[in-house]
Amino acid sequence: MAKNPPKNAFYAQSGGVTAVINASACGVIETARKHRGKIGKVYAGRNGIIGALTEDLIDTSRESVTAIRALRHTPSGAFGSCRYKLKSLEQNRREYERLIEVFKTHNIGYFFYNGGGDSADTCLKISQLSETMAYPITAVHVPKTVDNDLPITDNCPGFGSVAKYIAVSTREASFDVASMAKTSTKVFILEVMGRHAGWIAAAGGLASTRDTEIPIVILFPEITFDRDRFLAKVDANVRKFGYCTVVVSEGVKSADGKFLADQGLRDAFGHAQLGGVAPVVASIIKDGIGLKYHWGVADYLQRAARHIASKSDVEQAYAVGKAAVELAIRGNNSVMPTIVRKSSRPYKWSVGVAPLSKVANVEKMMPADFITKDGFGITAKCRTYLEPLIKGEDYPPYRDGMPQYVRLKNVPVKKRLKGQFKV
Amino acid sequence: MAKNPPKNAFYAQSGGVTAVINASACGVIETARKHRGKIGKVYAGRNGIIGALTEDLIDTSRESVTAIRALRHTPSGAFGSCRYKLKSLEQNRREYERLIEVFKTHNIGYFFYNGGGDSADTCLKISQLSETMAYPITAVHVPKTVDNDLPITDNCPGFGSVAKYIAVSTREASFDVASMAKTSTKVFILEVMGRHAGWIAAAGGLASTRDTEIPIVILFPEITFDRDRFLAKVDANVRKFGYCTVVVSEGVKSADGKFLADQGLRDAFGHAQLGGVAPVVASIIKDGIGLKYHWGVADYLQRAARHIASKSDVEQAYAVGKAAVELAIRGNNSVMPTIVRKSSRPYKWSVGVAPLSKVANVEKMMPADFITKDGFGITAKCRTYLEPLIKGEDYPPYRDGMPQYVRLKNVPVKKRLKGQFKV
Repeated sequence: MAKNPPKNAFYAQSGGVTAVINASACGVIETARKHRGKIGKVYAGRNGIIGALTEDLIDTSRESVTAIRALRHTPSGAFGSCRYKLKSLEQNRREYERLIEVFKTHNIGYFFYNGGGDSADTCLKISQLSETMAYPITAVHVPKTVDNDLPITDNCPGFGSVAKYIAVSTREASFDVASMAKTSTKVFILEVMGRHAGWIAAAGGLASTRDTEIPIVILFPEITFDRDRFLAKVDANVRKFGYCTVVVSEGVKSADGKFLADQGLRDAFGHAQLGGVAPVVASIIKDGIGLKYHWGVADYLQRAARHIASKSDVEQAYAVGKAAVELAIRGNNSVMPTIVRKSSRPYKWSVGVAPLSKVANVEKMMPADFITKDGFGITAKCRTYLEPLIKGEDYPPYRDGMPQYVRLKNVPVKKRLKGQFKV
Repeated sequence: MAKNPPKNAFYAQSGGVTAVINASACGVIETARKHRGKIGKVYAGRNGIIGALTEDLIDTSRESVTAIRALRHTPSGAFGSCRYKLKSLEQNRREYERLIEVFKTHNIGYFFYNGGGDSADTCLKISQLSETMAYPITAVHVPKTVDNDLPITDNCPGFGSVAKYIAVSTREASFDVASMAKTSTKVFILEVMGRHAGWIAAAGGLASTRDTEIPIVILFPEITFDRDRFLAKVDANVRKFGYCTVVVSEGVKSADGKFLADQGLRDAFGHAQLGGVAPVVASIIKDGIGLKYHWGVADYLQRAARHIASKSDVEQAYAVGKAAVELAIRGNNSVMPTIVRKSSRPYKWSVGVAPLSKVANVEKMMPADFITKDGFGITAKCRTYLEPLIKGEDYPPYRDGMPQYVRLKNVPVKKRLKGQFKV
């Protein structure tokens, strides 16, 4: 009797991409290729889960060893990501049935979903569905988020690199403003990501160390913005050091609960002007204490900056991809590999595992004791937590001065289902 | 008869700092130290020329070999810079007389001024003054400007590194938006420096190469902004590629001659809101074609980014510092070392020399044939010019994940003049 061919795997990237999500993809695909007896092909969803719903699958077996290897040093999502949250089974059973239909059609028995909190939830639902619909799927979530807000895991792949970018950029810009402060700019304001939690803003605090002290005021989303206290702090720094750097999270709110960024910028026609808390903070400084300022908004640069990725982060992103496949092969369903910190100095970590039921829909906030009492800085405890995550450099290869990031061929798998599925 | 001690040198940094201006300082100081028979001490001006006017001199001989060496990989101005333009001799003879008084008092016979167009002019005036006031000063200008707008020299130290930063960041952010475009952001807008000339914006074009094509629309200050043509171009790119990246120079003007950045953003109280052409362009895209966008403003990050400095740039910044001292020792007065391009592929260059009279008050603009006919891109000729300037990486040393930038002791030279000089 002919042996059944091994089940294929489905892999997809979800939500905002990072500098190292492709390193996880590399870990998944390279590890699956080492276990050909257990896993057939790895099909990637084009544009995330939408690729599964629309039967738009990419055959990663068509990519060379070199191309897959290069994913490790390529930022962003090589197969495309998406912002698309599946509704509950009750609300949209049709989507889940469609997923099962596509999986069945392409002999897919493994589901690897690479994302943050929302995708952990999707991954959990897929595994539950597989039971109720009697089609076996081993679903493993591969953690990824610059927001660092997944529970259980010590940290999230993707965060370490954005933290390193923000720490390095804050140090560099601070050196710049310090040089200029005598006759020109005295305050530099850097806006960073983090709508709910201040992890990324906290990384700005790493720019200042014992041997390189820098006056940095951090505005966390966890701390309600207090104009007067903020201005007093900036003013005191400028008096003492001659300059001041402000790292402001996009999620900072004022006492009325509204985002500071939405506090009412209008264009010439009176239309509300979207986004940018940095210029708002700049205006507050200008109106309040009249100091000359410059401001920057890192936006996508911070999460795409593979050129200054953290080595810890790249290694962990790869490791969780690899572990996801190994867990699945060993029959672990509905789980997520985690990073377990064993010691901070020296930094030692290993890969653990968490049940998805304890991951989905849980947001890990910054501990209160990571923020200094005045609300503008990070504590020693926070520094001990953050420092290992930005450790080490992992430079991509360059040609003619430019980093060589790979673009895959992304060869489609032939569609077999009739009719189109609208998402 | 006792031999006269050699004359001391004065070195100062001027205007906006760069990722490599300290590499020029390193070149000046290390080379002067090799010629102790010809040059005594190198005194740096604290906060640029203001340090000379106020007799606030820094004794660089108090810095270790290691500290001076580390200037080569440290961004910003280690002695402080300033934005301070000396008036003409006729308008403010007092300042020039004061400079000569300070130079005489500290036996300074060499004047090295590290800056852009304005400081070349100051340097020229100092050398002219030295003749009319019969106190011999050998004045050499050390070129530096991210704006790349000095004449005669093929390029300006400081530009290559900001160009590399913008090219790399544009490529990385483009990979990001390409990943997200299916369900989210379709246009990414990056604001870059360059109020008068589009050199830095042009560097964004390097992100797209033959093997990594990226749809990039560049808005140059040389090209009057045309809303409809711009929107049509962005729209066409999104239709063809699924996404589009816009690199916009802060100096872009609309048909009325006003900066697009100043087109009328107001805060909630109706006050004019300063700065940021990126959010203005974002609004134009939102109102015009309704596409989802993200925007970033690189600001100081671009010119401070020593972590991704161009190796060509670092080498040239050091070389012009070294050459300045060698020129001065050989008796060349009122000159500036230049970069002479010998070939582009492979890149070969040497150091030449230009008379300051031909440098001061001349601004080098982008040649018209560096911009494509549609006004939104760079030509092959421009690419051939720019590519060598971003070549090579020159990473700073890291400890615990952070670049190790030096801070000097900056020990003051004892003041000898009575009375204070107000600037």
